[in-house]
Amino acid sequence: MLEEILSQVQSGKLTVSEAKEKLATYENLGFAKVDHHRKNRQGFPEVIYGEGKTQEQILSIIHAIRSKDNDVLVTRISKDKADYILREHPEFIYNETAQILFWKKNTTKVDDYQGYIAIVCAGTSDLKVAEEAAVTAEALGSNVRRFYDVGVAGIHRLFDNIEQIQQATVSVVVAGMEGALPSVVGGLVSHPVIAVPTSIGYGANFNGLSALLTMLNSCASGISVVNIDNGFGGAYNAVLIDNIAKKGANKG
Amino acid sequence: MLEEILSQVQSGKLTVSEAKEKLATYENLGFAKVDHHRKNRQGFPEVIYGEGKTQEQILSIIHAIRSKDNDVLVTRISKDKADYILREHPEFIYNETAQILFWKKNTTKVDDYQGYIAIVCAGTSDLKVAEEAAVTAEALGSNVRRFYDVGVAGIHRLFDNIEQIQQATVSVVVAGMEGALPSVVGGLVSHPVIAVPTSIGYGANFNGLSALLTMLNSCASGISVVNIDNGFGGAYNAVLIDNIAKKGANKG
Amino acid sequence: MLEEILSQVQSGKLTVSEAKEKLATYENLGFAKVDHHRKNRQGFPEVIYGEGKTQEQILSIIHAIRSKDNDVLVTRISKDKADYILREHPEFIYNETAQILFWKKNTTKVDDYQGYIAIVCAGTSDLKVAEEAAVTAEALGSNVRRFYDVGVAGIHRLFDNIEQIQQATVSVVVAGMEGALPSVVGGLVSHPVIAVPTSIGYGANFNGLSALLTMLNSCASGISVVNIDNGFGGAYNAVLIDNIAKKGANKG
Amino acid sequence: MLEEILSQVQSGKLTVSEAKEKLATYENLGFAKVDHHRKNRQGFPEVIYGEGKTQEQILSIIHAIRSKDNDVLVTRISKDKADYILREHPEFIYNETAQILFWKKNTTKVDDYQGYIAIVCAGTSDLKVAEEAAVTAEALGSNVRRFYDVGVAGIHRLFDNIEQIQQATVSVVVAGMEGALPSVVGGLVSHPVIAVPTSIGYGANFNGLSALLTMLNSCASGISVVNIDNGFGGAYNAVLIDNIAKKGANKG
Amino acid sequence: MLEEILSQVQSGKLTVSEAKEKLATYENLGFAKVDHHRKNRQGFPEVIYGEGKTQEQILSIIHAIRSKDNDVLVTRISKDKADYILREHPEFIYNETAQILFWKKNTTKVDDYQGYIAIVCAGTSDLKVAEEAAVTAEALGSNVRRFYDVGVAGIHRLFDNIEQIQQATVSVVVAGMEGALPSVVGGLVSHPVIAVPTSIGYGANFNGLSALLTMLNSCASGISVVNIDNGFGGAYNAVLIDNIAKKGANKG
Amino acid sequence: MLEEILSQVQSGKLTVSEAKEKLATYENLGFAKVDHHRKNRQGFPEVIYGEGKTQEQILSIIHAIRSKDNDVLVTRISKDKADYILREHPEFIYNETAQILFWKKNTTKVDDYQGYIAIVCAGTSDLKVAEEAAVTAEALGSNVRRFYDVGVAGIHRLFDNIEQIQQATVSVVVAGMEGALPSVVGGLVSHPVIAVPTSIGYGANFNGLSALLTMLNSCASGISVVNIDNGFGGAYNAVLIDNIAKKGANKG
Amino acid sequence: MLEEILSQVQSGKLTVSEAKEKLATYENLGFAKVDHHRKNRQGFPEVIYGEGKTQEQILSIIHAIRSKDNDVLVTRISKDKADYILREHPEFIYNETAQILFWKKNTTKVDDYQGYIAIVCAGTSDLKVAEEAAVTAEALGSNVRRFYDVGVAGIHRLFDNIEQIQQATVSVVVAGMEGALPSVVGGLVSHPVIAVPTSIGYGANFNGLSALLTMLNSCASGISVVNIDNGFGGAYNAVLIDNIAKKGANKG
Amino acid sequence: MLEEILSQVQSGKLTVSEAKEKLATYENLGFAKVDHHRKNRQGFPEVIYGEGKTQEQILSIIHAIRSKDNDVLVTRISKDKADYILREHPEFIYNETAQILFWKKNTTKVDDYQGYIAIVCAGTSDLKVAEEAAVTAEALGSNVRRFYDVGVAGIHRLFDNIEQIQQATVSVVVAGMEGALPSVVGGLVSHPVIAVPTSIGYGANFNGLSALLTMLNSCASGISVVNIDNGFGGAYNAVLIDNIAKKGANKG
Repeated sequence: MLEEILSQVQSGKLTVSEAKEKLATYENLGFAKVDHHRKNRQGFPEVIYGEGKTQEQILSIIHAIRSKDNDVLVTRISKDKADYILREHPEFIYNETAQILFWKKNTTKVDDYQGYIAIVCAGTSDLKVAEEAAVTAEALGSNVRRFYDVGVAGIHRLFDNIEQIQQATVSVVVAGMEGALPSVVGGLVSHPVIAVPTSIGYGANFNGLSALLTMLNSCASGISVVNIDNGFGGAYNAVLIDNIAKKGANKG
Repeated sequence: MLEEILSQVQSGKLTVSEAKEKLATYENLGFAKVDHHRKNRQGFPEVIYGEGKTQEQILSIIHAIRSKDNDVLVTRISKDKADYILREHPEFIYNETAQILFWKKNTTKVDDYQGYIAIVCAGTSDLKVAEEAAVTAEALGSNVRRFYDVGVAGIHRLFDNIEQIQQATVSVVVAGMEGALPSVVGGLVSHPVIAVPTSIGYGANFNGLSALLTMLNSCASGISVVNIDNGFGGAYNAVLIDNIAKKGANKG
Repeated sequence: MLEEILSQVQSGKLTVSEAKEKLATYENLGFAKVDHHRKNRQGFPEVIYGEGKTQEQILSIIHAIRSKDNDVLVTRISKDKADYILREHPEFIYNETAQILFWKKNTTKVDDYQGYIAIVCAGTSDLKVAEEAAVTAEALGSNVRRFYDVGVAGIHRLFDNIEQIQQATVSVVVAGMEGALPSVVGGLVSHPVIAVPTSIGYGANFNGLSALLTMLNSCASGISVVNIDNGFGGAYNAVLIDNIAKKGANKG
Repeated sequence: MLEEILSQVQSGKLTVSEAKEKLATYENLGFAKVDHHRKNRQGFPEVIYGEGKTQEQILSIIHAIRSKDNDVLVTRISKDKADYILREHPEFIYNETAQILFWKKNTTKVDDYQGYIAIVCAGTSDLKVAEEAAVTAEALGSNVRRFYDVGVAGIHRLFDNIEQIQQATVSVVVAGMEGALPSVVGGLVSHPVIAVPTSIGYGANFNGLSALLTMLNSCASGISVVNIDNGFGGAYNAVLIDNIAKKGANKG
Repeated sequence: MLEEILSQVQSGKLTVSEAKEKLATYENLGFAKVDHHRKNRQGFPEVIYGEGKTQEQILSIIHAIRSKDNDVLVTRISKDKADYILREHPEFIYNETAQILFWKKNTTKVDDYQGYIAIVCAGTSDLKVAEEAAVTAEALGSNVRRFYDVGVAGIHRLFDNIEQIQQATVSVVVAGMEGALPSVVGGLVSHPVIAVPTSIGYGANFNGLSALLTMLNSCASGISVVNIDNGFGGAYNAVLIDNIAKKGANKG
Repeated sequence: MLEEILSQVQSGKLTVSEAKEKLATYENLGFAKVDHHRKNRQGFPEVIYGEGKTQEQILSIIHAIRSKDNDVLVTRISKDKADYILREHPEFIYNETAQILFWKKNTTKVDDYQGYIAIVCAGTSDLKVAEEAAVTAEALGSNVRRFYDVGVAGIHRLFDNIEQIQQATVSVVVAGMEGALPSVVGGLVSHPVIAVPTSIGYGANFNGLSALLTMLNSCASGISVVNIDNGFGGAYNAVLIDNIAKKGANKG
Repeated sequence: MLEEILSQVQSGKLTVSEAKEKLATYENLGFAKVDHHRKNRQGFPEVIYGEGKTQEQILSIIHAIRSKDNDVLVTRISKDKADYILREHPEFIYNETAQILFWKKNTTKVDDYQGYIAIVCAGTSDLKVAEEAAVTAEALGSNVRRFYDVGVAGIHRLFDNIEQIQQATVSVVVAGMEGALPSVVGGLVSHPVIAVPTSIGYGANFNGLSALLTMLNSCASGISVVNIDNGFGGAYNAVLIDNIAKKGANKG
Repeated sequence: MLEEILSQVQSGKLTVSEAKEKLATYENLGFAKVDHHRKNRQGFPEVIYGEGKTQEQILSIIHAIRSKDNDVLVTRISKDKADYILREHPEFIYNETAQILFWKKNTTKVDDYQGYIAIVCAGTSDLKVAEEAAVTAEALGSNVRRFYDVGVAGIHRLFDNIEQIQQATVSVVVAGMEGALPSVVGGLVSHPVIAVPTSIGYGANFNGLSALLTMLNSCASGISVVNIDNGFGGAYNAVLIDNIAKKGANKG
């Protein structure tokens, strides 16, 4: 493209100032190039972190996104704020447990990819974070299977479900308290495990520090960790991996 | 006893000063009374913590104990120091992995109690602490069964041994890294589990803090915890529990 | 049992599909076997952790438990939520200090076992956690004796009670602030001590961390530790140990 | 399979005891089934963590692995110990920077998959961990491209290489000190980023804690974290993801 | 001055008690001398830290300051308290985002110094601290340019503004979450960077500890750090530096 | 004094320059005044912290002190370095356990004050710090009684000595591990207790942090704390208090 | 006393059972002996820690104390609760800043002791803790002088008051933020300094941890430390020391 | 420059490919532009962090730097390694206390700027870090005045030097132990203070954490902080500020 512009200057098709403007654009394209691969993610809805924002601020960001005809995903949004948005956008879907509000332009699956992400957690107390992960992954276009209530304290429940978990492309394992579940799952599957510590617990749990350290020190290979209570981040990583599988599947 | 002394004073069998001396003894007995239940432990050999003591100091403490014809148990004693002691006391037994030196006056079991303590650990790296626990328990008179190399990363090995572990009176579960093993064992047995975190690991393990927190936050009930690397303490607790069972068994 | 089924197939008493169904059951029994020893705990009421659950959720779990004719034990339940449950189940017992709601099918003691658990604490500030321990132990079927207000700052009060504490099967020692009480008790008794740190204190107490570290580092042997404020866990461990003594006593 | 065995019993082809033995095998297969997906990893060489093992212990484990004709990967092994092994196994490859010793039965690539893992790090001080990651990934069969010396303090060096990093399947980003590099890379690529904090630094670095926290709190999505200095773990995760891409590529 | 006083005593111009009083003043001047350079700061308004003070207390301190005809700067003051002050002092300016109330006697710039302080931050969540810094710097008499929303997760936005940032005299870089922005800016500019960590984030952010450690460990030179959320302190340091430049500029 | 100088100037007894010189001295005395009360401590030998200094450096500081005819106290000095000093100053006293070297000009007690400082500790492992305290107190001129081996794990030994401890003017209580001893002593005495945590212990002791927190959180009143292993500081505080008692005693 | 009882038994003046009862009393006296020195503190009012107690509980404890005609001191009591007590006991004195309620039977000073405790703090933010110390010391019978607003940031204010501080018997120095004040005071006085860290501050202050560590690490000798915000504890220690001086003064 | 190139293409002075090459350079210049302001620092010698590098590595980096005729500054280099370099480069200067090796092409000062940086520290123990700062600042071309041994424990020594410190352009204040010195200095000067915590101390110092927190929480304004023991970083910041003053001074 640079060569073309220079040739046009040489041949007089472009004045110097026209070329300068075009090269400015080129330079911007240079930066755009930097952002090129990132664009691939734009199949993803834009993500708004709702906590600490007013409902008016959230609505105004949504308007900006919708004007570009993009999908919408709002995380950490309370029922009150969601209700405010839903009054104007009744087509949006709100999941109260996950505290997620989202809208997808196109809900019809275009491919028949059968792979899925396993969302695994120990019990009701970790449900909120697990659902943040599950709903995020669905909103980002992945298939999800939920395996809740399979904690290590009653490990036979995990074994009843282990085959389905093993067949997933990637697992997101959510655990609070001592956070031992990802280690056990990691020893039983051969795909990547994204571990999400939660702040559930009390005393020497130190708001999730205990579960976080457990997961970082796991003696099972194939486990990586995101921030405490970061169900969204766990799912985001899993979807990136699922997309690699999807690309391969579509090729076949 | 007090009544008896007073009666003897009354009857003239004891002078006032004789009685006073006896009552001084009585008073000491009063304190001894405080120490009464503790005496039950004296079936236990006296315990010397070897770390930070010279071989001469250890030997001198041993002489004092032997003069009262008691058993001897030295923990955290290096091979060098042990060899020094063994030259004078070749009848002592030294276990290098456990770093324990001990001697029991009477090695013949007097009862035919079948109960045992299960010492459970994940692998070779925790062996040293597990052996400190196992040898301590044996030196204190309990039966011990070792279940090593049954970590959560390959959980089927644990299942191959679970029935024998379940039949123990009490388990001492030793684990480093993420320390998840006691939670899993605790969910599978109905007896008390003493969890011993080890300092094995690196990075965010923080010298055993990770395993310690995991065990304190275990979502399985029936687990209590001792200090990092404290195999001796774990065994000591287990033996106290085993002795309760032994007492019952001997009655039957 | 497997042999029997196979013989019946051989002899034609069972068709292949009948045998298959039975073996499926067998396989389940296989898993049940894993859960076998755990079943022994079923004399225990099922335990519901009330914190973070709505009163409706708690009631619905209670219904499920009662349908199996089991005992009920709800911990960390506020007076408001308990009142809601009590309206439907006036036969339940609520202890507000302990924040425990429970119901026992059969309150008549079947055995005349005299052993007891000593619940020891320093003073009024640790009362809540001590009562959680005491009421839990009672609800789980153990005899309990309370020794409150025996803190180390006025150690003669501890000495006034030490003989009764010494005669217990196991002690649960609850302490906040500097958490020194278990060390002192541990030096005076010959049975296992379960130490429960509490978050009572301020400043460099760091929400119970100070007491927790004190207990883990105790120079008295025979002490193991549970999580901060975990009165329930302390009692649960003690009851497991008490049950060993009970089994022996019944034999005698 | 169960049905077949039962039919054979019914038809007399199997005696009861023969069937029993076969079913025992079946049950084992049941457990084997649990380990089934894990078997897929066996394309991976078995991994020995060299730290804290003597050269004799390592050699003896290698013999066991070789007897099953498997590949070998030893991590955290010093030059001294490696030399000891190499005397017997001169065909092994030792990388001193990475402290890795390995041997691959079959070094010819069977597929022409072009995807690669980007190993990214800031500078010479993180080289050791980065090389542990790179050599691990190569030993596990992935293509690797190294992007070293691209730290945030001189960010233009990162930009010179960003396109090649963007075209990777997955990145392993290694950083010590403040650990900011994964955040910057994560904002420029659309594939999963595995962040590896290192203990390089001093003072308020607290042996890698600073870098670890930075990575867990990254405001860029698509980043997950492994333990401090865990180059092996970072690579292992990346290879699991690369294998998903490889499977898809081979299909096409 | 001392010599003069003594001469006057000698010559009888001063009585002993007059001289004594003067020397007392001299001694006070001695202490005043200690405070001499500090006086240069008095071009700065006096600063009131509003948090934890009642509106009445703040008003009364303002009265004391105004009586000396000084400028006023109140930081960390809520809208409610500010409204209370504004009712009496409607000429004051309140910035709600920055939580700052101030008044300057003389708003006309006396010099035509063109230098400015760059206030740089990543996004809306750090706005409050960034504005505390920006408004403080303006109230203390410096020119300010704001560069908000230039976080490392979308680094091209930083590059769009980098030249203007580079031309500043000094930068105050505000960042929460992982706090990587100062490192990146520090690698691109040649002037001093004051880094301000914020408590924005959750989980392993530990209320700003993560960002604080990142900044202290920055591998870019020329960065120094103030307390978490201390926008005022960051600006104060920057103004001291800006004043050095101003002094030089006025000379030229 | 000022008045006198001025009068002498007035009366011509002093020239202006003579007065100026004297007043300069006066001004220095002004500063000396600041240091006035501090001078009272000069009965104390000057203290040299030996750690991190070479033997040559220590000797040279000693020469400077001796030239002013002052006493000498060197803490944290190893045997090797002490031997080097003793070759030149054979009159010095070295205590190897305490790692203290000192010399007192005048070892004869001038008063017959009977009060003493009680140095209390649990056992042999804390001996080094306890001796640092005891020898420091003696070198600073106080009477000392040692009560070693009276730890809480065998509390009857403490009771055997409690009366003598109670009669001390002030106690320095040294404890490692869980650090409970000061709380118990503090509940039994009515004088000030200076608590000295030691770094003795392992695992969750965290180099003395556990004992430090225990002491800061003590529920017994009348306890204050110095740095970990700071036997010197504990003694120094005690001597300051003992001196108050001594002053009163001498008056009577 | 023992001898007397025995003689009376010998002479028939006491029956055996009478003697036994007396000796039981004697034994109790034995314990009372343990509490003997502690009794000396009873000139102090009994202290009630108000936090976490209801107004009814506090009133009921007060009744118990008053029935023994003792003084009363309640710390950490809010205005609401104090008003409730004051309605029944209008003769009590309440200090709202200090959050202390107290009553002294005998407010007339019996001695003319002139010594005093210096309560030193930096400014308005630490006032609450400083007043807790000051009012406690007064309620316990010591003279107090307050030196507030003398922080290190404007050190000339400290120098204006240093002579009066130096003449105190003991200083209680209260400081939040960086907590440097005790080090500076400790370098200027020759009496004991009790340092009280406060939780005043934000960010990296970590609720007083910063000030606490500063004080424990002070390079000035003669400083000991109490818990964060523990103004009561600081004063209690100071009063114990002041009482030593008082005893000496009265003798003279 | 872009315009010029385009005009030359238009006028035929440049062919398209020549222009392309030049624009490539331009693009590089574009990046160079990013690095433009940074270039101003190139008056600074290039800095090599010596720790963890072999002497051969250091020498080879020096060769690379010298080939560009640049100055050389190596920090954290031991005497042994320095001697190795000095054998080849005897013209280099090595400062053993500071552990710095440097060489300046042009040691003649070109300007007669009188401003200086004050390096302030408490005593001999912080000397090493203070000298790292002082020598760094000198090597980077600033005037330096050293004020050592002026710690807060003997504050009159600070006052003897305060005027000279006040007249500095900027101060670097180095302190270990409790780290109070920067707060005191910051309250007495009106220029920026760069605080450098050191790891000197023991016990609750936690390797410099105590001093670091003290400095971050300083109640004096105008203080910013660098990493623990980072004398180099403190000086680097100070030189950047000094250069601003120098620029102004040269103008006048």
